[in-house]
Amino acid sequence: MPKKEEKLGISVKKSEDFSEWYTQVIQKAELADYTSVSGCMVFKPYSFFMWEIVQSEVDKKFKEIGIKNCYFPLFIPESLLKKEESHVKGFNPEVAWVTHAGNTKLNERLAVRPTSETIMYESFAKWIRSWRDLPLRLNQWNNIVRWEFKHPIALLRTREFLWNEGHTVFASKEEAEKEKEQILNIYSDFLNDYMALYGVIGKKTEKEKFPGAEATYSIELFLPSGKAIQGPDFHSDGQNFAKAFNIKFLDKDEKEDYVWQNTFAITTRMLGVMIGVHGDDNGLVMPPKMAPVQVVVVPIIFDKTKDKVLKKADEIKSKLKGLRVEVDDREGYSSGWKFNEWELKGVPVRLEIGPRDIEKSQVILVRRDNGKKEPVKISELNKKTDKVLEDIHENLYRKSKKFFNDNTIKVKNFNEFKKGINDKKLVLANFCNKVKCEEEIKDKTGGATSRVIIKEEKGKCVHCGKEGNFLVYFARAY
Amino acid sequence: MPKKEEKLGISVKKSEDFSEWYTQVIQKAELADYTSVSGCMVFKPYSFFMWEIVQSEVDKKFKEIGIKNCYFPLFIPESLLKKEESHVKGFNPEVAWVTHAGNTKLNERLAVRPTSETIMYESFAKWIRSWRDLPLRLNQWNNIVRWEFKHPIALLRTREFLWNEGHTVFASKEEAEKEKEQILNIYSDFLNDYMALYGVIGKKTEKEKFPGAEATYSIELFLPSGKAIQGPDFHSDGQNFAKAFNIKFLDKDEKEDYVWQNTFAITTRMLGVMIGVHGDDNGLVMPPKMAPVQVVVVPIIFDKTKDKVLKKADEIKSKLKGLRVEVDDREGYSSGWKFNEWELKGVPVRLEIGPRDIEKSQVILVRRDNGKKEPVKISELNKKTDKVLEDIHENLYRKSKKFFNDNTIKVKNFNEFKKGINDKKLVLANFCNKVKCEEEIKDKTGGATSRVIIKEEKGKCVHCGKEGNFLVYFARAY
Repeated sequence: MPKKEEKLGISVKKSEDFSEWYTQVIQKAELADYTSVSGCMVFKPYSFFMWEIVQSEVDKKFKEIGIKNCYFPLFIPESLLKKEESHVKGFNPEVAWVTHAGNTKLNERLAVRPTSETIMYESFAKWIRSWRDLPLRLNQWNNIVRWEFKHPIALLRTREFLWNEGHTVFASKEEAEKEKEQILNIYSDFLNDYMALYGVIGKKTEKEKFPGAEATYSIELFLPSGKAIQGPDFHSDGQNFAKAFNIKFLDKDEKEDYVWQNTFAITTRMLGVMIGVHGDDNGLVMPPKMAPVQVVVVPIIFDKTKDKVLKKADEIKSKLKGLRVEVDDREGYSSGWKFNEWELKGVPVRLEIGPRDIEKSQVILVRRDNGKKEPVKISELNKKTDKVLEDIHENLYRKSKKFFNDNTIKVKNFNEFKKGINDKKLVLANFCNKVKCEEEIKDKTGGATSRVIIKEEKGKCVHCGKEGNFLVYFARAY
Repeated sequence: MPKKEEKLGISVKKSEDFSEWYTQVIQKAELADYTSVSGCMVFKPYSFFMWEIVQSEVDKKFKEIGIKNCYFPLFIPESLLKKEESHVKGFNPEVAWVTHAGNTKLNERLAVRPTSETIMYESFAKWIRSWRDLPLRLNQWNNIVRWEFKHPIALLRTREFLWNEGHTVFASKEEAEKEKEQILNIYSDFLNDYMALYGVIGKKTEKEKFPGAEATYSIELFLPSGKAIQGPDFHSDGQNFAKAFNIKFLDKDEKEDYVWQNTFAITTRMLGVMIGVHGDDNGLVMPPKMAPVQVVVVPIIFDKTKDKVLKKADEIKSKLKGLRVEVDDREGYSSGWKFNEWELKGVPVRLEIGPRDIEKSQVILVRRDNGKKEPVKISELNKKTDKVLEDIHENLYRKSKKFFNDNTIKVKNFNEFKKGINDKKLVLANFCNKVKCEEEIKDKTGGATSRVIIKEEKGKCVHCGKEGNFLVYFARAY
């Protein structure tokens, strides 16, 4: 037996020490690894495959609605980054600066992009002349650097991460506004239908909106650590950047006006959320559509029947067309060890096949989400597997929604509010949406921030007591 | 008519001023654009779409042979970059250095990756323990920065570019060696079958091999500027990096040994080569499989028959399933102007349809590569279009090969050699493969470098006259 066997399992319970559990899952399921660059991680093939699914599925939807991909430079000259005041304030403390090339000092420092508004909009101002050039709907999939000084957490908070950044330009506010629903639906559908994640869509408060935007919308999620996290987001930039970068167009009546802009993004942190929400004490639990391996076939090997069983295992693999199937025919590992390893990796369905199963023309099907085991006739395997994968998806989504709602409490006063935050809940409260009031809430609660406004609702602000118009989620957050 | 119409055409002949022709094509066909970061360009949607084809097709082939994608950090600590001596020497003068994050000076400078050997192999040394962990065949598609001080040329030579970098690890030299043919075939097939480009595969000389590799192989191409350019390449690293990074494994007999490694890459510069080789005085000529738009339908519009013609144009588009088709129904542009624009953009097939064509149940099909025009019955359009697209591909490939061979001369002495280089030819000569001799050749010819060794052949070195074993291409190069 290889020595490796000893190190397989996760040594803590998820419910008792989420943070240690998460760290072990990331390492032991071979998702990511540390490097000698502080705060930057490797995406190992197992997690990168999941990111490729995000990319390809979301990209397909973007293309269907007419968004085109492009690629802008990684570097942004300092003077350009500073063109929109609130934007640069938001990012300046986290910018990695290139100062030298070879042995030559550069005339001007270059920012490694913390986001690409400034470098893109300089070009947009050149490219856009008339209504004929609009809408301009561009997107890029790239790497982003934000040198945060908070403790890094694999996938959830790293100094370099991957994302899409959509940057679109319209002739009118109405057209720009219409895109909001399109994009938020694409993201939200992906979270639900692929990642089996439940989240709520809402608008960010004045304090939490994107630096430079008029309004930010996001999908907010909640992790078993008791912390919320911002998922994909959408920013209505209005004409802010258009004015800073002088992006104007001539309309059909030959009148000049500033354009209307949006930006939107989904990042690799979503992989961390998915892993954190669905996993259990045995490791990852992968939503079937995101699983690099959807079905693993484990042949139960005895010397006498080995060839027959391996052959049958391969047959089963080729029968399950359209699915990502692996046959684990490695030698020198016990079946039990293999079961544990594939559980750790969260493979949704395991098929065990031994000589006695072959006699009965069956396999033993084991579900990762609930551990249920049942014999399935090989003639019915395709149908059954599809059905089970669907069930697993629905089960995970249902649990994710229940978890979110079970951890939400609506509060009436600030004492309940503080208790809720201390109990690591998502707290729903009436709020005035004043920046100063929100800053005070943060100070008094050891870090609670607003997550999203879910609707307008009259009611006294939970903190300052003044008349408020907004019903808002608060929580500690990543 | 919009003012734009005036600026459409290319104002120089390709054969008279390639460099100006290339610059105009890049701008006017909306392929790329300058930015305020010197030497870094935007890939506009039209060129980025082509890169997406490179990525998806090459990636598919990599996955078929068992290579997996991953993602390593953009930054490399200075001390790590310096671990393999010849490697760092090769890249140091071109490294962009990050020295600050926000207002904080970093303890150690970080290189923006000029290539990822060092950051990847530090992890490989941790991950690889035994023969069970091998082969490890990883790849990443990412952005690379090399701060060259030569004049930048869109797509062909920019300070940031995009590529794949494959990094594979094997237990034996033989296995590592076997991969060479697999990878070079994938690249070469892609160049031939998608980009319609002819190039020669060979081994680099001692002077030109990759810093840190034992041997470098590449596909060399030749541009109408009279300059050669290195295409996709493959490096046999032997155990060089394994020794520098201490990447060892226990073999089946429990003996410890260093691993054997390869690396390989295809970059965005190939788009520049494709554009430069195939284009003509009217602009781009796109190989059909790389064309963002393969067929453009231009309805010939008169007031009375407008609706009927537009409807027919849409019908034709939906008939041509599986192809990338656009109907140019823009108003305010003449048909002639549209023809010119789509020619500039190199769309392989144009279909013109007017009221008289509808009466005859036909369209007029125009080929971009040779300008030939013919009526085609709508009932035969699918078959005909497929056939024409295939023909165009073959025609472009044939021309590319003829161009390469017509510009190759075999020389017997150094006078002929110098004349060949001055005449902007690819010069084939016997060579000793000594670094010093090659440096002298470069000095005496105003910059000629060896491109590839195409075979071993006895003969006196064209420069030093000593017995040489190699038949080698030389040229000025990008």
